[in-house]
Amino acid sequence: MALKLYGLPMSTCTTRVLACLHEKGVDFELVPVDLFSGEHKQPPFLSKNPFGQIPVLEDGDLTLFESRAITAYVAEKFKETGTDLIKHNNPKEAALVKVWMEVESQNFNSAISPIVFEYIVGPIMGKAADQAVIDANLEKLGKVLDVYESKLSITKYLAGDFYSLADLHHFPYTHYFMTTPWASLVNDRPHVKAWWEDISSRPAFKKIVGAMTFGEGK
Amino acid sequence: MALKLYGLPMSTCTTRVLACLHEKGVDFELVPVDLFSGEHKQPPFLSKNPFGQIPVLEDGDLTLFESRAITAYVAEKFKETGTDLIKHNNPKEAALVKVWMEVESQNFNSAISPIVFEYIVGPIMGKAADQAVIDANLEKLGKVLDVYESKLSITKYLAGDFYSLADLHHFPYTHYFMTTPWASLVNDRPHVKAWWEDISSRPAFKKIVGAMTFGEGK
Ligand SMILES: N[C@@H](CCC(=O)N[C@@H](CS)C(=O)NCC(=O)O)C(=O)O
Ligand SMILES: N[C@@H](CCC(=O)N[C@@H](CS)C(=O)NCC(=O)O)C(=O)O
Repeated sequence: MALKLYGLPMSTCTTRVLACLHEKGVDFELVPVDLFSGEHKQPPFLSKNPFGQIPVLEDGDLTLFESRAITAYVAEKFKETGTDLIKHNNPKEAALVKVWMEVESQNFNSAISPIVFEYIVGPIMGKAADQAVIDANLEKLGKVLDVYESKLSITKYLAGDFYSLADLHHFPYTHYFMTTPWASLVNDRPHVKAWWEDISSRPAFKKIVGAMTFGEGK
Repeated sequence: MALKLYGLPMSTCTTRVLACLHEKGVDFELVPVDLFSGEHKQPPFLSKNPFGQIPVLEDGDLTLFESRAITAYVAEKFKETGTDLIKHNNPKEAALVKVWMEVESQNFNSAISPIVFEYIVGPIMGKAADQAVIDANLEKLGKVLDVYESKLSITKYLAGDFYSLADLHHFPYTHYFMTTPWASLVNDRPHVKAWWEDISSRPAFKKIVGAMTFGEGK
């Protein structure tokens, strides 16, 4: 039975999982969830994810939520298929993948997501962007990218000289961030820029990026 | 060669790792880092963690940072020793551990850590607590704990009827949170309260809690 992914093709957290599924070349069915009518806050969906958020993955009788837990599950279950995203045969490299996955989750995401939210998502919901929030987070993001710049001057990807889930997890927010007026935070750092150009040109991303239209025409 | 953990016994992120090492019964050496003199922002330490934060784990020539990446590494490397924290023999249970580890990281930690920071850490650094930040995060935390309350009415622990890293990761911030005026957020939810009493009475926590004195005498 194919995997079932509940989500939307323009949602950042859904595309994190989509990118992983494409890297692994795994069959799946995307089941849209109508966020606009509030389907995700109603009992059928809440029984899949009590936090009422997309994405959710169903694999037979197993129901998972949280995009990064889903990608880790898919990368582990299909470790022999497609791109090896977790270096499952090398415990040291696997540990470094975990370190940089945590960096994305704790340091990068917490700075970039409020910027994307304020600049792109908020206005669509009728909420004016709060420039103070944007500025504070641009400063945090700049510091994180300084560390990335020196790391990426030593290794080609974050966890080492190999592409992994740690890089992949950055894709959705960075993609939207590059459409904001602050893309120079990436472009002005040569190693970060080269890394972004590399990972964003992977076939797995090309397959999903066309549908990542949130905020377009803004 | 024993593992080397750089950190401090009252720091939340260090104690997350300490709890894991004690659950596994693994030998280690704790190397104190002088945060007050800024040792963590100087080159020798920055070469271990470029973000200049504790904890850091050294295992021979492997250097890891980010507390949750370190616990995942320790739980995997020593999977046959002590408490099984990741259900390594059961892929479905292992996936659910990952889901609830992400919930802690994304939903719980992001609400509880600003409260602990504002109420306990900030004042020690000479910064008055910002009640608006506390109030906004108490509201967020309450919603997260509502989900925990219903989950814990079905299973004894977060990922299922077994103790795991997902529960363990909650320990440091909840411990400090229980010393604030808002401990009722836990105590008023009977299943959350019973879960907290259970996990906080584990021998691994009893070994470290005596040194978690940050903010005492406040
Ligand atoms: N930490 C979660 C976040 C999920 C999330 O924020 N999903 C958004 C879409 S990108 C959502 O469902 N928003 C609707 C809502 O929160 O009401 C993950 O990584 O899966
Ligand atoms: N996400 C990191 C956070 C580490 C962290 O915040 N460490 C604190 C101590 S609990 C620290 O080193 N603070 C000093 C600083 O940031 O300058 C982890 O989980 O390890």
